[in-house]
Amino acid sequence: MELAYDQIDDLCRGAAFLGAGGGGDPYIGGLMIKRALQEGGKVEIIDPDDLDDDVLVIPTAMMGAPTVLIEKLPSGDEVLRAFAELEKHLDRKAFATMPIEVGGINSTIPMWVAARLGIPVIDADGMGRAFPEIHMETFGVHGVSGSPLAIANEHGDYAIVNAVKNQSLEWIARGIAIRFGGAAYIAEYPMSGEQVKRTSVKHTLTLAMEIGRRVELARQSGQDPFAAIIDFLPETHYSLGKILFTGKVVDVKRTTERGFTVGRVTIDGVDQGSLMIEFQNENLIARKNGQVLAIVPNIITIMDVETAEPITTEFLRYGQRVRVMAVSVPEIMTSPAALDLFGPQGFGLKEPFQPMIAD
Amino acid sequence: MELAYDQIDDLCRGAAFLGAGGGGDPYIGGLMIKRALQEGGKVEIIDPDDLDDDVLVIPTAMMGAPTVLIEKLPSGDEVLRAFAELEKHLDRKAFATMPIEVGGINSTIPMWVAARLGIPVIDADGMGRAFPEIHMETFGVHGVSGSPLAIANEHGDYAIVNAVKNQSLEWIARGIAIRFGGAAYIAEYPMSGEQVKRTSVKHTLTLAMEIGRRVELARQSGQDPFAAIIDFLPETHYSLGKILFTGKVVDVKRTTERGFTVGRVTIDGVDQGSLMIEFQNENLIARKNGQVLAIVPNIITIMDVETAEPITTEFLRYGQRVRVMAVSVPEIMTSPAALDLFGPQGFGLKEPFQPMIAD
Repeated sequence: MELAYDQIDDLCRGAAFLGAGGGGDPYIGGLMIKRALQEGGKVEIIDPDDLDDDVLVIPTAMMGAPTVLIEKLPSGDEVLRAFAELEKHLDRKAFATMPIEVGGINSTIPMWVAARLGIPVIDADGMGRAFPEIHMETFGVHGVSGSPLAIANEHGDYAIVNAVKNQSLEWIARGIAIRFGGAAYIAEYPMSGEQVKRTSVKHTLTLAMEIGRRVELARQSGQDPFAAIIDFLPETHYSLGKILFTGKVVDVKRTTERGFTVGRVTIDGVDQGSLMIEFQNENLIARKNGQVLAIVPNIITIMDVETAEPITTEFLRYGQRVRVMAVSVPEIMTSPAALDLFGPQGFGLKEPFQPMIAD
Repeated sequence: MELAYDQIDDLCRGAAFLGAGGGGDPYIGGLMIKRALQEGGKVEIIDPDDLDDDVLVIPTAMMGAPTVLIEKLPSGDEVLRAFAELEKHLDRKAFATMPIEVGGINSTIPMWVAARLGIPVIDADGMGRAFPEIHMETFGVHGVSGSPLAIANEHGDYAIVNAVKNQSLEWIARGIAIRFGGAAYIAEYPMSGEQVKRTSVKHTLTLAMEIGRRVELARQSGQDPFAAIIDFLPETHYSLGKILFTGKVVDVKRTTERGFTVGRVTIDGVDQGSLMIEFQNENLIARKNGQVLAIVPNIITIMDVETAEPITTEFLRYGQRVRVMAVSVPEIMTSPAALDLFGPQGFGLKEPFQPMIAD
């Protein structure tokens, strides 16, 4: 399918929801895609199941602190350079690009690359949401190396990184992104079509677009946008969505540690106790009066109680009236190997993973 | 000429002297070369003036904190990997390697590479002494790019860095070296034979070996090793050496800032006032009662008053009896463009460069 201009806002809205409180602002990327379409670019979104086994796919993304991005808008040349340098390093042209992360801004970057280079973007990603580090990928769970990775900045500087372990790749590339001023653009996890089909979380770009569309339709028709999401999810492999809590933000503790936004937020309900959510860029665990209601990798999103607009962890403020939703993630994200990488233990939480159960 | 086993200690002794208080311990590299020769390796040292214009030369080096190196001995595979990956990236085999820095350990690393790969090492370098940062090279003064640079660690991780400016290359590669644990191995400033001839400080490996040999001969025959150096230098393009001061270390202020050893040492003479030396890894400026006696890029080396063994800035201690020597550097290192990069202004000193004058 070809991306229509009026689907861009839907994509951004859905990507913000799937960002689980992090992932960076997709609207910046949305503006970039709009301009590319206005200039005659086209984005062909293709189903991963339609890929030939032996094509080369190179995912593209922003790497760094989302807060930096706001002050340092990408020209776009950075990510095209990273992409081109990785192709040159591999001595092979890529057939398509795709997201490594559907939540937040990284759903939009590959769309822009696709529009500019005239290549397709694949309707799949490697996180099925947003995570803070680039080794937290279903690709890696199933043995795909993130290396070689190309990273570029706005001055024309770039690097190719090869690491034995994906966790080292994250460590090294993160160091470069910091020296590049806190935000950089990457091309990495070069993969075959067969690997994409076997290791990705599928149909997540169209998922984001459909979530965004349903929320907008509900808003326009005066319906409940939360109900619109919850009603839609059973049609997808994100089978269950539910409202965890509604209340007022009464306390936000937030610091910046090792380049991440780390902290916790407390939300008081009218007469039903309080909900506490811990986060590291993304929301990790929600406890109501001490009892775990939802835990990573399931998606926890805090939204404005009126508009259902997601509120990212860096924009949480005292007094906000919010509704907290949780969404269960596809099976490929909850295998033991997946949980090792981006389940509770991957974030140093003591609580084990627990699947969501319908009320 | 082929490097003889008993020249290795001479090389290390001379390289420590040319380290100007920094540059890292050459004896670690010396041990590596000794083992390589024992295992049948040979090191052919060739004159830069004998190079064909169009051969490819790839310098090799250690990058990082010398203090880290002592606790993290190189296996050697790191630098061979950096060298091989840069060759692969350039899609061309190198004819030879060479040092970027003759002072300290980096005089020895390319010798080891030469022994292991069976390629020549060129009798020249890009600093003519030791400097703390990799953009402080006569190569760059004359327009040679340090990029692409390959950097590798002991785990098999590596990166290729391309920066528009050599100063950015230093910044980015330094960041990677820090994430690699504080010390890494690099191959960079890939150059043609013509560029080596035009931009390098020539005959510095044989200079180091001859300084080391003369000091050792003087020690063995009960002569003055300081006089041995001073008598030899007029035969070279490091035309002048002199003793600045003799005394006792009475104060050392030293901190670690941005990965560098920064501080100053005060030396009291018996009845001739005191000498103060400021350093950033290497000694930068020597003032006697406020008057500048020597300033970077001229070489200032603090040595044990008995043995003439150089004392690096991190080993300065209260009570040491020392003699301070200064050596003038070749013309290629004192052009206005060279001084911009590694003269007093390159280190943030207010004092202008002043050539050394014979007493």
